[in-house]
Amino acid sequence: MAAVTAGLPHAEALRQGVTTTLDAFLEHKARAAVSLGMSPEVAQSLGGFLAAGGKRLRPLICATGWQAGGGRAIPEAVIRTAASLEMFHAFCLIHDDIMDDSDSRRGAPTLHRRLTGLQGSSQRPAAAERTGASCAILIGDVALAWSDELLHTAGLTPRQLGAVLPLVHEMRSEVMYGQYLDVTTAGRPTTDVEQARRIIRYKTAKYTVERPLQIGACLAGASLAVREALSAYALPVGEAFQLRDDLLGVFGAPEVTGKPSLDDLRGGKHTVLVALALQRADAGQRRVLDALLGMDGLGEAGADRIREVLTATGARAEVENMIAALRARALRVLESAPLAPYATAGLRRLTEVATARAR
Amino acid sequence: MAAVTAGLPHAEALRQGVTTTLDAFLEHKARAAVSLGMSPEVAQSLGGFLAAGGKRLRPLICATGWQAGGGRAIPEAVIRTAASLEMFHAFCLIHDDIMDDSDSRRGAPTLHRRLTGLQGSSQRPAAAERTGASCAILIGDVALAWSDELLHTAGLTPRQLGAVLPLVHEMRSEVMYGQYLDVTTAGRPTTDVEQARRIIRYKTAKYTVERPLQIGACLAGASLAVREALSAYALPVGEAFQLRDDLLGVFGAPEVTGKPSLDDLRGGKHTVLVALALQRADAGQRRVLDALLGMDGLGEAGADRIREVLTATGARAEVENMIAALRARALRVLESAPLAPYATAGLRRLTEVATARAR
Repeated sequence: MAAVTAGLPHAEALRQGVTTTLDAFLEHKARAAVSLGMSPEVAQSLGGFLAAGGKRLRPLICATGWQAGGGRAIPEAVIRTAASLEMFHAFCLIHDDIMDDSDSRRGAPTLHRRLTGLQGSSQRPAAAERTGASCAILIGDVALAWSDELLHTAGLTPRQLGAVLPLVHEMRSEVMYGQYLDVTTAGRPTTDVEQARRIIRYKTAKYTVERPLQIGACLAGASLAVREALSAYALPVGEAFQLRDDLLGVFGAPEVTGKPSLDDLRGGKHTVLVALALQRADAGQRRVLDALLGMDGLGEAGADRIREVLTATGARAEVENMIAALRARALRVLESAPLAPYATAGLRRLTEVATARAR
Repeated sequence: MAAVTAGLPHAEALRQGVTTTLDAFLEHKARAAVSLGMSPEVAQSLGGFLAAGGKRLRPLICATGWQAGGGRAIPEAVIRTAASLEMFHAFCLIHDDIMDDSDSRRGAPTLHRRLTGLQGSSQRPAAAERTGASCAILIGDVALAWSDELLHTAGLTPRQLGAVLPLVHEMRSEVMYGQYLDVTTAGRPTTDVEQARRIIRYKTAKYTVERPLQIGACLAGASLAVREALSAYALPVGEAFQLRDDLLGVFGAPEVTGKPSLDDLRGGKHTVLVALALQRADAGQRRVLDALLGMDGLGEAGADRIREVLTATGARAEVENMIAALRARALRVLESAPLAPYATAGLRRLTEVATARAR
């Protein structure tokens, strides 16, 4: 997603500004903890997680919204608001990785695995795993609480804060609802494509694209017409983005994506890809999917058999068709959207990167 | 803690008001979810958790702070703020129970256990347990997010909100730091009494007593002198409250406390009681503690052996002495505090109930 930079005049400065804001905030928290006789570990673990990578996608989309709403150079308060979105995202990722029992993220061990490893040999393995997971749950909780603190100390005007808070509240609920559906359907994938799309809509399209865009636009005082156009654009792009992510999660190269390509299959995730394959499978293909999807010890050989079925049923091609259709819909929205040309250019580039990306 | 009612003129009305606020908020959320094609389960599970009991202690203490700050009849906005504290507390309890792997709370199964039970027979036990824990993590996350939403829609004036937000942010961080210390020391109790007291100070004294009192007082526009007096009072009362809780957690009757009296011992919690016993134990007593504290399958017979040591070393009596000293310190603060007599009466009653309670 780094290429989105090119479409946004201030992207590199923004990314740097977000990182600087997060670093300064967490350094302050670490020092404050020490002065109270507490350990700086919480702030440091969270800082390590945030520094380990991440494309700062939501801050960048928020800044794109700022410009689409008529804003130009990005002021400090908007950078801090964008940083609060990144902190919130850290919360989401840390808790998602616990729920999904994932081993790695961004090419490194997930936070709960790393914290389990730090428990040392004085604890039995099961106890170390429990302590590691508990610490990661807590550090996720802290990230959620601190994202709120960043937002409220961003220096927004009362009018800006009043406009943005309802969107932030919606965004939080939506991503949690999406994750709830994801968790409760995992391990039991069905032919229900609509439900799989609903998960995507809440967990990604609204959370990753629509809300950050709207938040940025609202900060700039965008008109209702602009905000509606941004929503109409955001939902298809966001859905396409997640469909691409689902394909990469199964067919992508782990050394590029940073995630093992087995996790989604081993977790039996209820994705559009899998729902379509279940709809189209013949008896033999169905047996393969039923036996292997969500299997605890699933290895590369089993995953390859699933991949064969996902391709042979045409499900993979159908998802590519869906991505192409969603991409076209988003671009059509931009043609008639009441946006400044430089904002449209940024959104057009975002569309390309989100739908065609290799990671 | 129900007896605190008597010291607070509007306590029953407040408790009812908080419950009504929470019910209405969650019903609205459940309806909104359904209208979006999502399940009302999240709001309903949280509602069930909140309805299953709880003394509404933090709302009551917040209302006591309101009166100590000079407020009289409790307005709707203060009730909603108090309700947001109760919602935040639901978040704390739900996540704490996951981290502590607790089976029961308020005499009923903990939320993650209940949700595990709801997974039905289509999942293997380990998968059902994972889904139950994941759903409970998420519902806790939702409670944290929604406590914020309740606060920001409470109808506070900008001045009230500005005064209260920094306290709310402090409160969130403090309880999370306390829980982090609790989790990272569990299973490895030591003779370090100071560290055990630090856990209490953050996890209970500040979180349960100081911050709710200050928040209520700030809403009423209390002077700095009043707020400082409330802190000086709150910290010893809160510490005594937790020391009593620790004693009850080990020596209390489960049918009265609603919690198994084995959980703290089985979890090897680093409490003041245990730290004092470890300091005072002779070689034989030390062997009992080392072998049994934090033991996975600890039963009643083993727990009785620990209890004998906790009593025989004098640790139990020492904790009772500490409670008495803290209680006296809190009452001394009240003697010279710049508070209205009716507020002092309420705080005096709170002191008695917190330090002498049977549950």
